[in-house]
Amino acid sequence: MTALRVTVWNEFRHEKKDAEVAKVYPQGIHEAIAKHLRTQGFSVRTASLDEPEHGLSEKVLAETDVLIWWGHMAHDEVKDEIVERVWKRINEDGMGLICLHSAHMSKIFRKLMGTGCMLRWREIGEKERVWMIEPGHPIAEGLPPYFEIPHTEMYGEHFEIPTPDDLVFINWYAGGEVFRGGCCWRRGNGKVFYFSPGHETLPIYHQPEVQRVITNAVRWAAPAAGPKIATGHFPEPLEKLG
Amino acid sequence: MTALRVTVWNEFRHEKKDAEVAKVYPQGIHEAIAKHLRTQGFSVRTASLDEPEHGLSEKVLAETDVLIWWGHMAHDEVKDEIVERVWKRINEDGMGLICLHSAHMSKIFRKLMGTGCMLRWREIGEKERVWMIEPGHPIAEGLPPYFEIPHTEMYGEHFEIPTPDDLVFINWYAGGEVFRGGCCWRRGNGKVFYFSPGHETLPIYHQPEVQRVITNAVRWAAPAAGPKIATGHFPEPLEKLG
Amino acid sequence: MTALRVTVWNEFRHEKKDAEVAKVYPQGIHEAIAKHLRTQGFSVRTASLDEPEHGLSEKVLAETDVLIWWGHMAHDEVKDEIVERVWKRINEDGMGLICLHSAHMSKIFRKLMGTGCMLRWREIGEKERVWMIEPGHPIAEGLPPYFEIPHTEMYGEHFEIPTPDDLVFINWYAGGEVFRGGCCWRRGNGKVFYFSPGHETLPIYHQPEVQRVITNAVRWAAPAAGPKIATGHFPEPLEKLG
Amino acid sequence: MTALRVTVWNEFRHEKKDAEVAKVYPQGIHEAIAKHLRTQGFSVRTASLDEPEHGLSEKVLAETDVLIWWGHMAHDEVKDEIVERVWKRINEDGMGLICLHSAHMSKIFRKLMGTGCMLRWREIGEKERVWMIEPGHPIAEGLPPYFEIPHTEMYGEHFEIPTPDDLVFINWYAGGEVFRGGCCWRRGNGKVFYFSPGHETLPIYHQPEVQRVITNAVRWAAPAAGPKIATGHFPEPLEKLG
Repeated sequence: MTALRVTVWNEFRHEKKDAEVAKVYPQGIHEAIAKHLRTQGFSVRTASLDEPEHGLSEKVLAETDVLIWWGHMAHDEVKDEIVERVWKRINEDGMGLICLHSAHMSKIFRKLMGTGCMLRWREIGEKERVWMIEPGHPIAEGLPPYFEIPHTEMYGEHFEIPTPDDLVFINWYAGGEVFRGGCCWRRGNGKVFYFSPGHETLPIYHQPEVQRVITNAVRWAAPAAGPKIATGHFPEPLEKLG
Repeated sequence: MTALRVTVWNEFRHEKKDAEVAKVYPQGIHEAIAKHLRTQGFSVRTASLDEPEHGLSEKVLAETDVLIWWGHMAHDEVKDEIVERVWKRINEDGMGLICLHSAHMSKIFRKLMGTGCMLRWREIGEKERVWMIEPGHPIAEGLPPYFEIPHTEMYGEHFEIPTPDDLVFINWYAGGEVFRGGCCWRRGNGKVFYFSPGHETLPIYHQPEVQRVITNAVRWAAPAAGPKIATGHFPEPLEKLG
Repeated sequence: MTALRVTVWNEFRHEKKDAEVAKVYPQGIHEAIAKHLRTQGFSVRTASLDEPEHGLSEKVLAETDVLIWWGHMAHDEVKDEIVERVWKRINEDGMGLICLHSAHMSKIFRKLMGTGCMLRWREIGEKERVWMIEPGHPIAEGLPPYFEIPHTEMYGEHFEIPTPDDLVFINWYAGGEVFRGGCCWRRGNGKVFYFSPGHETLPIYHQPEVQRVITNAVRWAAPAAGPKIATGHFPEPLEKLG
Repeated sequence: MTALRVTVWNEFRHEKKDAEVAKVYPQGIHEAIAKHLRTQGFSVRTASLDEPEHGLSEKVLAETDVLIWWGHMAHDEVKDEIVERVWKRINEDGMGLICLHSAHMSKIFRKLMGTGCMLRWREIGEKERVWMIEPGHPIAEGLPPYFEIPHTEMYGEHFEIPTPDDLVFINWYAGGEVFRGGCCWRRGNGKVFYFSPGHETLPIYHQPEVQRVITNAVRWAAPAAGPKIATGHFPEPLEKLG
């Protein structure tokens, strides 16, 4: 079995502008995630907003089985043509997409969902507890019935998303909210996972349970070698008509 | 109970250009559908592409509970700002949307789905049989276990859509295909129904079972008076934190 | 439109044995629920465990559109033949079923789900907050984005249920858990709603939001007049075979 | 990675009584299926109705990752305690279950579904065409957009099942019906797949596409090593209450 090819995309702006972010993720959030994934047997590369074509050339995408997306302050700077390219690669070729935390407002996630994708939020460092809702799901492998994140940004309902095909996690917050924090959807030939934990100034991507979820999600989101989608004009019937 | 307010939108081009279409739907497909709906106790208006703002001003939408959409050859002429307006009205205010036949490639349907929305098609006037898959669904009211359309345009799988929240009908075609021909989705506060039967030169919208489906779908898609979606920044926790 | 016919079933044991219960629901939980429903334009009767056939004769069921079920300490005393009768009425005729609180372990709910239906629980009177997850759902009508129950029995995940067709509410608990507290499923021609709030010694069924949910659920669960399910041997093909 | 352990269960009655069946499946349907699966790297055993405990002792089940079930004329002879044992192993431990063809009326399938599970049927050897509906699904791997079965028993809608979590295949029949012929459900920690093709006197289990589907389904249905389901009484809150 050849290694799954993962590209970790990060808008990579906070880390350059904000000392507090740089302290937690000195080489960027993408490198923190990539570093862990490299220990899991994946073939991992990174890409970021300020590279040419945002680091997502046709060639890079063609060599990517699963794309991980982190963005926050610069969603609007992502070019529509690159969004279109990623969208096609997911729908037509079955590339997986994992959207993390504030990527709920990224262009690509919103385009795939068809809804507003906003949510309720608050940033006071309260406690979060992530509950497993589908214990038999591949993304729940190796995880306990729940795990805690000591300090988090609250993301609460209502979350403007279509009903997930699989709802894997629901979050509890000390401040009183709940959130569908781990959601799966199929889009065309591809699979999409949204996972809410994570933040630019909190060390959440260093937490083992969070890393385990991302690893599991990469395996789940990998393309299946099903039939190429065959649509369009087929003028001949398959059956002889009377 | 006040009457549900329905707007039937039609691109209304075929009927003006093509004598064969005009023969089947002399006042346009929209009028054929509207005429039936008026007999069902709804308050019905129509709108079409060549009217100012495509007939879908803010005022018209604000007075519409359910919008029915028929388009085919001029999907690209629908202005993006009008699509955005319809999309908002669905997601935020819960207006229902019913997309008929070739509206599977309309901008509004594709934006709501997040997928390609193409399908397999053939136009040889073969027989179609529509099977009820959810006999307890509101959209199945008053219908038999199946009904037949003597001459149809074949729309077959694969249909590039997200998994429907409810799959109400599956079509059989004499030429050998199947199709998820009656599908429901929730999007934000609104509901979307796609129904495949219909064509510009076939008298399908005059068929009682098809009219019944559209009537049922209007009732199903009507807005519910649930909570306004409350998203954004809520800096104060609901609970006192220790 | 004739009034929907609702039967409120209660095992009605706690109220007779326990003074604390009798104080909150002096005429039984069923009467507390029925009393409210009678103000909503429904035709309401009640039934309970110790009546002949548990008050659920063929005649009573044939005259019931929606059955509400409350049970707790005597699930095992419900006769299998009555469970079978209720199950048939739901699957074949489309009678709706609303299971409240501890009815998650009733024979009828477990038979309809096909899973264990156990959950995590705790009884210390903590605070619960019920969040609307599908604001456009008929069961969310007239409700705010969330409502609070000051003192509740905690019901938490993992809840051993099949994935709901619609997930309407998620509960938050002060003690740290979450719960899928408002869930819809279709079973055969019928509809099933589970709603977790409620308890024998807490005045939860007197709370207006809870009453509103039950009212909405009755309307949602009412039978649709779709086709009778037609299964079995059909030796003749619908099409002439070559 | 150790090999997945598969047990192929067959009621094994037709083959002993009916020369026509014995000609197509001389060693039984179970051996035909097992023989193919052994070439796919699985560890395969078989079991049948007339063995002690139907060949499904606690030990055998404890050593089974995925159970394949074929039954038809003797569903009622399967003992309830064995059904209960299989049900527990699926729900609690996550064993996968694949129900083939007439197993739609087996006790274990009906118990897991909670519905009647009947369907429309006809036995005239007509043509069937199986269409892929989820091309990105693991069970669609290596398959074309559709495949044909030259002579089949028709299984048509309405099929009395709960809405599948994933609908992978829809069948077309020459005689005019459609059928949800490949359906996935999660039940507790386990996964269930129903696949309609197959028959006791037709060589369908010798067909490569059918064998491929069963192979894919075994991999999909294998248990995930998620958390043990933790339900019951947890008297202590996870959070300190004010």
